[in-house]
Amino acid sequence: HADSARTNATLQAACTWGNTPDGGMDRLTCNNDDKSVRDWFISETKKYGCHHRVDEMGNIFAIRPGQNNNLPPIGLGSHLDTQPTGGKYDGILGVICGMEVLQVLHANNVTTYAPVAVVNWTNEEGARFPPAMLCSGVWGGEFTAKYAQGRQDPEGNSLGAELKRIGYMGPTPCSFEANPLLAHFEVHIEQGPILDVAEKPVGIVRGVQSIRWCNVGITGREAHTGTTPMDRRCDALLGAAKMIVETNRIVTETEVAPRGGRATIAVINSLPQSINTIAGKVNLGLDIRAPADSDVALIEKQCIEGFEKICKQHGLEMSFDNFWVSPALNFDPTMVSCVKQSAAELGCDIEIVSGAGHDSVYTSRKVPTAMIFVRCKDGVSHHPAEFSREEDCAAGAETLLRAYLRYDDY
Amino acid sequence: HADSARTNATLQAACTWGNTPDGGMDRLTCNNDDKSVRDWFISETKKYGCHHRVDEMGNIFAIRPGQNNNLPPIGLGSHLDTQPTGGKYDGILGVICGMEVLQVLHANNVTTYAPVAVVNWTNEEGARFPPAMLCSGVWGGEFTAKYAQGRQDPEGNSLGAELKRIGYMGPTPCSFEANPLLAHFEVHIEQGPILDVAEKPVGIVRGVQSIRWCNVGITGREAHTGTTPMDRRCDALLGAAKMIVETNRIVTETEVAPRGGRATIAVINSLPQSINTIAGKVNLGLDIRAPADSDVALIEKQCIEGFEKICKQHGLEMSFDNFWVSPALNFDPTMVSCVKQSAAELGCDIEIVSGAGHDSVYTSRKVPTAMIFVRCKDGVSHHPAEFSREEDCAAGAETLLRAYLRYDDY
Ligand SMILES: NC(=O)NCCC(=O)O
Ligand SMILES: NC(=O)NCCC(=O)O
Repeated sequence: HADSARTNATLQAACTWGNTPDGGMDRLTCNNDDKSVRDWFISETKKYGCHHRVDEMGNIFAIRPGQNNNLPPIGLGSHLDTQPTGGKYDGILGVICGMEVLQVLHANNVTTYAPVAVVNWTNEEGARFPPAMLCSGVWGGEFTAKYAQGRQDPEGNSLGAELKRIGYMGPTPCSFEANPLLAHFEVHIEQGPILDVAEKPVGIVRGVQSIRWCNVGITGREAHTGTTPMDRRCDALLGAAKMIVETNRIVTETEVAPRGGRATIAVINSLPQSINTIAGKVNLGLDIRAPADSDVALIEKQCIEGFEKICKQHGLEMSFDNFWVSPALNFDPTMVSCVKQSAAELGCDIEIVSGAGHDSVYTSRKVPTAMIFVRCKDGVSHHPAEFSREEDCAAGAETLLRAYLRYDDY
Repeated sequence: HADSARTNATLQAACTWGNTPDGGMDRLTCNNDDKSVRDWFISETKKYGCHHRVDEMGNIFAIRPGQNNNLPPIGLGSHLDTQPTGGKYDGILGVICGMEVLQVLHANNVTTYAPVAVVNWTNEEGARFPPAMLCSGVWGGEFTAKYAQGRQDPEGNSLGAELKRIGYMGPTPCSFEANPLLAHFEVHIEQGPILDVAEKPVGIVRGVQSIRWCNVGITGREAHTGTTPMDRRCDALLGAAKMIVETNRIVTETEVAPRGGRATIAVINSLPQSINTIAGKVNLGLDIRAPADSDVALIEKQCIEGFEKICKQHGLEMSFDNFWVSPALNFDPTMVSCVKQSAAELGCDIEIVSGAGHDSVYTSRKVPTAMIFVRCKDGVSHHPAEFSREEDCAAGAETLLRAYLRYDDY
């Protein structure tokens, strides 16, 4: 059985590095706190009989041998990186539940049929190095290691250079083919309100909705704010503002709204950042989601059309780069049924489609994959107030343990 | 007579430091290029018989003695700092015209009645350390030296610390009382299209319009872009975008529009700058202008009202700080008539109210002040394409020379 006190003590230990005064976390990929928690993860999992494999994307596989070590391990994975205004549960809970499974096996001297690997996937959030799920994406064949290592943060540091800096660019090639798993289970907080409203500790994840990320570049013309008549301006920031409003209008007032379309601009950069010079260059980051791939495509199309009109009206040039597409998907039926049976034993039967992307999206490209959601307060995440009760965290670990053992038997 | 070739050679020399590949300038207050051009200004003006006074705000007075050195000098001033996307004329031309006057006096062995001081005022643009005209403002009694030295750039460096770093925090107290002038003339590019349309090289500046600068802080709530329903968001960037659009609407569609009201948001900063976390904090810089003080106040009031409605609609908190007020003003009639007579000798009689603020705004608080505008192409400024013809620059210097000698006689 998963131990609630132990699970939560491990979770708190994992939040030793990068916690913020408001109770949240700020542990961006490959910063010094990320290095510290990686060191901790390795030394802790060694105690439960694991050896380690670190791949060229910094993904860490803590492997506990089974009876048949010629088989690839069954993966129990998630991520230890966080948003800049993140909480203590998003990603972290999934790795900790995997560690709790290791501790249960270790304490009970169990040798499983296949080996098991608790995996810390690098840069799941994509907050520092967009896109999200970047390094599970390399493993799953969506991105090349070269592309992923070359991704840059706003200061121009590449992920590859930062992995080297913290000593986590490992020797193992990053791919299913070079370093396979047999299957992948992931526990994650729901990040939505369904379980909280239904008063259930855990839920069964049926699949993940569709996501696209785009960069929008807007070029106007710098000019004096005090002397330039209002009708002679090419104001890139005014154009950007109208695009943000238009994006919101599309997903709240057009046909995609009742079908659950969402679109957000949360990143903006403007130059030359002088209060008396009209902005000449603005960049926006656009996040589009919907249950259906076709709706995500439709929202993107409507955005481009609306943005082009705004550019025409204000004499602006636009570049539009859809740099990430993550289609909607359903998880493996056998895996989902392992989760379903285990959740049922805890009195839970709610099935959910995830609004957020997860590393399991990319592991599912190569191996049978399923996810377990844990209830979180008010559905809040990417905020310091993110919270899951101790007993719910333990319920997540217990469901994982049972689902995993079911699959190991099977 | 002012020499066209010499005036323009001096101007080009002053643009040795901080010029950009696109033909413009990026010489923010107190950066290393600003230090270099200050060193150059002192060594050049020494050649024409000047000694120097540097005050505690880094304002440099290059003083050429007259017959009556118990009199304060007549000031010929402007500024050598630029916008980040600035041109080679805004401010620089005014200092260079003063230097040309010195060279004419020197070459002709003239000893004027009163001493003359060519002044380089610190941080006129306000681009790095808002507000604008900060250090002529201290001299004119609008700001305390303590306030001005404490102003910070976005990285948190104070103007005082930066003045010390480049060796330009001088020993002279910065005030009219401690370091008086007798009067202040300033040549500046028009930064508007009137002279260009009228095909006149120079114009007479009657006064300066009204200006206010404000900082707007918007606080929402960070949340996941993928899992947070559109109707459950407190999106600070969406609110900010609506404020930018509303600001533009006020000055283009309400009663202030035909009266020449202008308002611009050109500075935006958003946190946490992660593409999948809804922005929780945004700051905006708001620049409001109009010929009448009452219209600037009205625009501010309309903005606050509009912004408050937006905050209510989106569950946002707002702080609004009007940190700078520069009322409309008219220059001294005697000084303006000296400019008028001199411009008339060059066939120019157009009177203009400046849309931009200038150091002369603050010198006029203490001493008779007037300005001469020089034609600039298409009225463009705060842009690398800013341009004034060589003969127009020389016409500015010639008008300054004549107006100044008129006042010295008088
Ligand atoms: N779980 C989570 O927040 N993942 C980040 C990827 C996304 O934006 O959906
Ligand atoms: N001349 C000039 O651009 N001054 C800067 C102050 C202002 O914004 O008007």
